[in-house]
This record gives sequence, structure tokens and C-alpha cells, in this order.
Amino acid sequence: VGRVTVVGDCEEDIAKGLGTLSREYDLVVVTGGLGPTLDDLTRAAVSRAVGRPLVEQPAAAQEIRNWFAERGREMPDSNLRQALFPRGAEVLTNARGTAPGFTLKMADARLFVLPGPPLEMEGMLMGEVLPRLTEAASGAGQGVLPRRDFFLVGLSESAFADAAGEWMERGACPRMGVTAKASILCVRLTLDDGSASEQALELRARDFRERFGRWIFSEETPDLARVVAQRLVESRTSLALAESCTGGLIAAALTGVPGISSVFREGLVTYSNAAKSGRLGVEEELLERHGAVSAEVAAAMAVGCARSSGADLALAVTGIAGPGGGSADKPVGLIHYGLWHRGEADTCERRFPGRGREQVREFATQTALALIWKALQGC
Amino acid sequence: VGRVTVVGDCEEDIAKGLGTLSREYDLVVVTGGLGPTLDDLTRAAVSRAVGRPLVEQPAAAQEIRNWFAERGREMPDSNLRQALFPRGAEVLTNARGTAPGFTLKMADARLFVLPGPPLEMEGMLMGEVLPRLTEAASGAGQGVLPRRDFFLVGLSESAFADAAGEWMERGACPRMGVTAKASILCVRLTLDDGSASEQALELRARDFRERFGRWIFSEETPDLARVVAQRLVESRTSLALAESCTGGLIAAALTGVPGISSVFREGLVTYSNAAKSGRLGVEEELLERHGAVSAEVAAAMAVGCARSSGADLALAVTGIAGPGGGSADKPVGLIHYGLWHRGEADTCERRFPGRGREQVREFATQTALALIWKALQGC
Repeated sequence: VGRVTVVGDCEEDIAKGLGTLSREYDLVVVTGGLGPTLDDLTRAAVSRAVGRPLVEQPAAAQEIRNWFAERGREMPDSNLRQALFPRGAEVLTNARGTAPGFTLKMADARLFVLPGPPLEMEGMLMGEVLPRLTEAASGAGQGVLPRRDFFLVGLSESAFADAAGEWMERGACPRMGVTAKASILCVRLTLDDGSASEQALELRARDFRERFGRWIFSEETPDLARVVAQRLVESRTSLALAESCTGGLIAAALTGVPGISSVFREGLVTYSNAAKSGRLGVEEELLERHGAVSAEVAAAMAVGCARSSGADLALAVTGIAGPGGGSADKPVGLIHYGLWHRGEADTCERRFPGRGREQVREFATQTALALIWKALQGC
Repeated sequence: VGRVTVVGDCEEDIAKGLGTLSREYDLVVVTGGLGPTLDDLTRAAVSRAVGRPLVEQPAAAQEIRNWFAERGREMPDSNLRQALFPRGAEVLTNARGTAPGFTLKMADARLFVLPGPPLEMEGMLMGEVLPRLTEAASGAGQGVLPRRDFFLVGLSESAFADAAGEWMERGACPRMGVTAKASILCVRLTLDDGSASEQALELRARDFRERFGRWIFSEETPDLARVVAQRLVESRTSLALAESCTGGLIAAALTGVPGISSVFREGLVTYSNAAKSGRLGVEEELLERHGAVSAEVAAAMAVGCARSSGADLALAVTGIAGPGGGSADKPVGLIHYGLWHRGEADTCERRFPGRGREQVREFATQTALALIWKALQGC
């Protein structure tokens, strides 16, 4: 990807931008502005940029009518605007929404115009655009750049950079790039100069696994929840959760993965002390003596969660998400975990200081998933 | 915002991009690439673009050392790279991370260079950049463009466009734009040509409230969870949730709002039938006769949730998120809601067909929040 340009809802700006990009690049993918409302200007802007009028394509109009009929909904008149295309454009089907896309040649460039809603765009990119590109590339005797991805958890970006050393230097071959998202590191090795053989990539990947193996949770996806869910399902380990400060985020992440229902028993968002006692049997005396955010309560929550759910593995989280509720002793960002597995309860604590409520909760959630992932290593 | 340009991790591309933008615009905000690793190239690229060498600023180096010392962590050597700035740059403090930003003049433009992690960027944009811009604008006798925002739920974008009619035409004054995110519509009225008086904006806003009042949940924020949480707290209405297909997303959305703990009793992610019976007292016979995804079970879940938690308001959700588990009778995307409030249980169903698991769960969550919002209208 050579350049990404974002322009506002102005027909002239969009048309001008398309002119520039189509002169400088072979391929231009446009997203957004194909909706039914009058501020959806992309079809008019493309029509202006290529100098061809908009015409209604009857087949596309029929598809839009069908979309509404199948759902038993009346079609608002404005939706018929979505059947207008610059003359000569090839219509691309949108299986996930009402706005079809289209493709056409503009000067020497190929233009793909896709709707903006991420799911619809993604569906059309995977289903319509990429297959056409792969076919065109292989027709021209080209392939894709060799690369390897690694996804790590439990290591900071700085500590990673120090341990990676010369592998990350600018002139290094293969080239190594790293990005961080919450506590997940995404590392990519790429051969991009064409002079090195693919073997150099394999060797570096092997050395990388040796140096960083204990932190690598996947070579395919940065989605730790998906990896944890798959391992739970594969090892037939049933799970229950007791969440306080994460408020349902761990359950939400894991239940986002299809198939999890075979192992996920239940999640309890025991936000109040009453819920911790009533649902998990945490003794009130324990809550009073140590406070709700303590290793003792985290352990009791995990044990109570395992007992009442009958799950093989139970994880409990209690912490201070902020912005209020912190003290010198127990500052905002302090999180206690309790993990019950194979008849034993373990606890650990983590601190995420200097972060906002949203980020404390996100880090606490990713760390919880990492703890389940580690507990499952031997399964 | 006139243009947004995204460039890759290449020093020359970044420097070239900065050159173009600083010639065409008065203000350029750069984000990302200030981290401690060797693929963080922004400081070197700015140095090249302005033709001034990088020098270490001792005060910034000390701040980075303090950041680690305060957290009891050892500072990796690579972090000291973050104290290098183009000569003459003014350093901007980053309260939320280790990478300071900076600002300098480049040709006739003012450049602000901020770190990429969203929370750090946001903190510096609000704390360092916007105050300087407001001051500069008022010094030049300028202000901000008058506008009004409206956030709606329960109306499709197409139906909105039909009802808004001529207000959305391109030449309309005030100008009206709409964007959709899940089931939330964000509508903005703007006076941008300077010829119309602010009174025209007020009149249109008044008419807008008349026409769309029943769908407007806020004129300030698109965050429905925040609006619902605030109304719960203001009306001192305690809440409990029983979630099946949304798997904790509703609880996670509401517990993201600070202060919610005063009214949020608990959330139960009763994913399995056993959890629905054990935790909520839903009779097994009811589950067998009607299936877990039914109005009858949604109502029983809501009643059981209210009884066992003692909350004033209880919401239950059960549905088919997909991709599997659907049938002709009960297709993927079918959601049943049960709402217990003031001694009565209501049910309703919604269908989100043709969408993936993630989007079904997201729509189901926003709709759940909208149901709570409506129930609280009279409170």
C-alpha cells in the first residue's frame, strides 16, 4: 500500500483526489459514500472524475428490491439511488448490505469502489477484489512478498526491542517491524528487496522462535481470545469466569469466538460485594478484612466460581479500573487474578499505572486471557 | 480537516509527505513513530524534512527516566532514543506514556508531532495541541464553525434520509451530514459558508428535535452506554443483566462508564442452559418446550434475574449470534429480549439478518441499551 488518503464529503475534493491517485498508482481502492443518503457523494464524484454519466443498472435495482423483500421490509425510495453507476462500470455484488460496489478503468489505473461499513467492505474486498488482483498478478508472472508473522504476549515493546537487537535495524534483511496493541506485540518479518532468498527468512524465523518462543501465542492471528478459545475447545476444558473490574470484557472476548459454547459454562460479573458473596460464596469477613481488591478475595472468587459452575478452569479478576477508587496502598491499575485449575487456586497481581479506565480494563482483559493461555500450555 | 494522509514506515516517504502537507496547509498534526524501537522513524523523518539535526534534550531524558523509576521498572536503553528532537523543537509532555511529542515551524506551517497509541495521542491533543490552536485562533480574531450534533437510535439510515428529505440536499443550509455505526445514527448540522446567521442553525435544530425527538438519545455523545449509565445513576435505578448471545458485551459497555458501580448490581452471562436454570431459575421444561431462544425464556430470564439480584430493572437477552445454530424457524440474527421493570416483564424480538456474528452481537447490544434507555424515559 503506497498511500492512504482520506477526504471529506465534498464531490470536487473526492474527484480531484481520484485524479491524482489514478495517475500515480496502478490500483486505487475507494471506500465509503455509496449509501442511500444525499451526503453519499462517491458515485457522483467518480462519474465526474472519469467523465461518464450515471445510469441506472436494472439488475442492481432488482437486487436492492430483493434485499428488502427477503427481510419483509419496505424499501425507502432513497435506496434506488444505489443502483446508479458510471456508464461502463462493472457492478460488484454486496452480500452483506444494500450498496453494491463497482469497478472501472480510469486512465491507466483500475478503480474498485466499495461501501464504507467495515463488514460490507471486508466481505467485498475478500470476495470480489482480492481474487481479481491475485488473478491479475499471476497472469503478469508476479507473486506476493514472502513474510512471517509472530504474535506475542507478556513482553513490553521496549524489552522486545532490546532483546531483538540488530534484527530490528533499518537495513536488516529480513526487515522486522513491530506494533503494539494493549499487551499484544505483532512482529512481522518481510523479504522485500528481492535479492535475499526465502531461506534467509526461514532461518530468521527459526532463530526468532528460539529467542521469543515463550511469549509467542500465535503465528497466524493477533486475536488472543480466539487462540485461547480454540485451545479450550481442543483440550475440552470447560471454563467459568468471575469478573469484577473487567465487567464482562473477558466473557465478551471469548464468546465472540464461534464454537465456544461447547466449553464456556458461564460468566459472572460480580460487580458489587453482595454479588461476590451471593453468587460466589466469598465470605463477607474476607471482603472486610482484605478488601474486594486483594489476592485473598481473588482466590476465593476463583474457588467459588469453579465450585458453583463445575468448570475445569475458573478465572477471577478483581481490581481498580479508575478513575476513582484508588489509594496509596491500592492504586488505580492494580489488578488481582485468581486462577482455579486441577484442584488448585493460584493468584497473581499486575499493575497498569498511569492509564485510563478503558486501557486498564483492556490490559487487564488481555492479561487474563494470557493467564488462561499459560494454564492450558500443558493440556 | 482538509486531508488525512497515511504513509508507511519509510523515512523518505514520511519526509516527502511532510514537505507536501506543510506547503499546502497551515497546520499539520503527525501521529505515530515516536516509540523506542528502530522502526520508529518519525523523529528522523522530521529532522530530514526540516533540515535540522536530532539533539538530545536532557530534561526530556530525565522525564523518561522518572517515568520508569516511578513504576519501579528498569529503563531499557532504547527508551533514551525518545529524548532526541530536531534542534529548536519545543517538547510536549506526554502524561500517559514514555514518548514525548514536539512542535516546530516548518516553512509557513506549524507541525505538531504526537505519539501513536490512541490514549496517549488523545491526551496530548486535548492537553497540548487544542489549547494552543484555540489561543492562536482567538488571537487572529477567528472562532469555531457553529454546529449541532444529534445522536439517534432505533431508526435506519435510509428511513432517516427519507424523513429528513430536503434538509439533506447538497446545497442545504445548514448543511446536514449523517453517519451510521451499528444502530446509532450521528447527525451533524453545520453552518460553514459564513453567509447564514447562527439563528438559521437554531431554527433547523428546533425543527429537527420536533421531527426526530423520539429517537434522539443525546446531543452530546454517540456513546449510548454512557447516556444509559448516567440516566441509571441519576434516577437511582439499580440494574442487573442476564446475557446469553451477547456474552457480556452489555455488561462490558455499561461498566466502562465511571460511577456505574452505585447502580450496577451484577451481570450473568448464562451461556449454557444449565446456567439459565441454575442461576436464574428458568424451568427446564420451559427451555425444552420453547427453546432457549424464545420470548418465554427471555421473560423467565428477566424475572429470575430481577428476583435473584433484587435490582429495580433487569434486562435479559437470548438469541442466535451465528454463524451456526440457526434454522428456518429461528434464523441467525434472531434476538429475544426480556425486560423486568416496576413489577412487570415485557418481551420484544429483533432480527438482524445477513450479518456476521460480531455485528449481530453489536446490534443486539446497542438495541438492549436502547430498550433500557426507553424504559428509563419516565424515571
